[in-house]
Amino acid sequence: MINLESLAMKYDGEKILLLDQQKLPHVEEWVDATEPDAMVNCIKLLKVRGAPMIGVAAAVCLLHLVKQGCDEATFRAEALKLRESRPTAVNLMIAIDRLLALDFSPEVIMQEAKAIFTEDVELCDKIASHGAEFIEDGDHILTHCNTGGLATAGVGTALGIIRKAHEQGKNIHVYVDETRPLLQGGRLTTWELEKLGIPYTLICDNMAASLMAQGRIQKAVVGADRIALNGDFANKIGTYNVALLCYYHRIPFYVAAPETTIDKSIQNGTEIPIEQRASAEVQGVTGSFGEVIWAPNNSKTYNPAFDVTPADFVSGWILDKGAFTKKQIDQGVLK
Amino acid sequence: MINLESLAMKYDGEKILLLDQQKLPHVEEWVDATEPDAMVNCIKLLKVRGAPMIGVAAAVCLLHLVKQGCDEATFRAEALKLRESRPTAVNLMIAIDRLLALDFSPEVIMQEAKAIFTEDVELCDKIASHGAEFIEDGDHILTHCNTGGLATAGVGTALGIIRKAHEQGKNIHVYVDETRPLLQGGRLTTWELEKLGIPYTLICDNMAASLMAQGRIQKAVVGADRIALNGDFANKIGTYNVALLCYYHRIPFYVAAPETTIDKSIQNGTEIPIEQRASAEVQGVTGSFGEVIWAPNNSKTYNPAFDVTPADFVSGWILDKGAFTKKQIDQGVLK
Repeated sequence: MINLESLAMKYDGEKILLLDQQKLPHVEEWVDATEPDAMVNCIKLLKVRGAPMIGVAAAVCLLHLVKQGCDEATFRAEALKLRESRPTAVNLMIAIDRLLALDFSPEVIMQEAKAIFTEDVELCDKIASHGAEFIEDGDHILTHCNTGGLATAGVGTALGIIRKAHEQGKNIHVYVDETRPLLQGGRLTTWELEKLGIPYTLICDNMAASLMAQGRIQKAVVGADRIALNGDFANKIGTYNVALLCYYHRIPFYVAAPETTIDKSIQNGTEIPIEQRASAEVQGVTGSFGEVIWAPNNSKTYNPAFDVTPADFVSGWILDKGAFTKKQIDQGVLK
Repeated sequence: MINLESLAMKYDGEKILLLDQQKLPHVEEWVDATEPDAMVNCIKLLKVRGAPMIGVAAAVCLLHLVKQGCDEATFRAEALKLRESRPTAVNLMIAIDRLLALDFSPEVIMQEAKAIFTEDVELCDKIASHGAEFIEDGDHILTHCNTGGLATAGVGTALGIIRKAHEQGKNIHVYVDETRPLLQGGRLTTWELEKLGIPYTLICDNMAASLMAQGRIQKAVVGADRIALNGDFANKIGTYNVALLCYYHRIPFYVAAPETTIDKSIQNGTEIPIEQRASAEVQGVTGSFGEVIWAPNNSKTYNPAFDVTPADFVSGWILDKGAFTKKQIDQGVLK
């Protein structure tokens, strides 16, 4: 009897359902992603998102495939299709490679996929505990994008830390960057914070600097899509901007991620490939809330999904195995 | 025979028409703002916008009022209503105060209002000439908000400089910050650059840092809504963020404005009042292109219209009377 459930995914052994994150916060609709093609589509359309959650969802999809009795060739072909559905998220590759490395045995693969799910829950709990130690009573905390229960199988990474600090009774307030162009902050982080009853204020991405100048932000915590061995990391576009603002204003800036986010094949951030996305995302906004285009129709845009934050701007790397300083990273703690 | 015409306003002695800037870039619609109440409304709804343009439009509105033969009491009452329609734009106050300081004579007031219009055109030309000297062949230039022909009676301030450099045959490219929440960059600066045939790329406000890290931006030029005597200035929210990014990346950052933007009653930026605007602007977007809300309905927001950039981040103040360094500002050149 299989039953894997998180804020964003439900699998009962028959069907994989994903909470359509493109329709939040106004509509809570579950979509069927049981078949690999449907899952690939959901990953590409960002219906399921968050680097850890994508890896977990793809693993569960392969679990179901072997449970249905597919042969090895089909398993490997579908695994490779899933592996390529999002180029920057290293967790996805790691999850798929863990399953591909096994001798082909449905029982063993199912066991491993379940482990990928439950491990992610545990990783989140550990990150949250390590990170919450840095949050002080009265802190106003800036976060970017969505890094909560929607982005992982557990409580999240950066938002998991905020949730844990709140559960510890610390009186905190969250400033949420809306996170253009896809508005994961404005739509998803706000939705999660409402559900959790944590006080927050939504801002446009260009407003954080003004708040910092007024002394109204004490900490910033963000997630990561890929971490290089030297501590440089790729995350949602705009993260590097936040890091620079914190650096100048002497505000501690933390990055939180499970160890699966570390890409041990990459020495530093310059080697991380950056996915470019469609112009229409910058020319306007689209979602279940509607679709509008405000820019001239033929306007040229630049739309990188991620940017790279150099390790020098990071006050601490909060991983499941502990929180680390730049000095510890330089000593090879990520290797 | 009166005929005052700019990109955003037409006055033929009978009617004042404003190009409705809320409807650009997709619809070019002129609205009647002949009556002071209609003009106040247009200023409040940002149908006419840009600190210099607001002052000019209000002056022309009073010109028409006295031309129609109103009495002194009416003139003074309407002037005060116009003066209060936008709290941060000091140009508006200066323009109105110039007219209020005169002995009440329709002929004299009309003359002075016309002078306010034509002076603004000349100021823009001078700013453009001084500023274009800093732009080099091959420069990729970041700008924020809209500071062009739509925002002034002339060619504009920051965008006027870009236009002038282009007319001088310099091969330049403009990166346009979309400028959330009201999208003056995404809607208006793009529209002006299309009309002028100047190559540009539209970006979200959080993307400039990533471009700078790649060495893809050589200069930044912005406008100002109010400049203090020490060189600190208020401008569209997000300007301080741009200034900090330029400072860190050692990219020259210029502010361009007519002298009417200097508020001689204010010693430094801390004294500049910052207008707070409605939550709905941050929760979504509204315009002739449509209206969408993506954030939870009851989400709390922070929505300052402006931020303050300290003088230390500014490479040069480009005014109509010349371009000045921090040292010259410290010596009292703005007094």
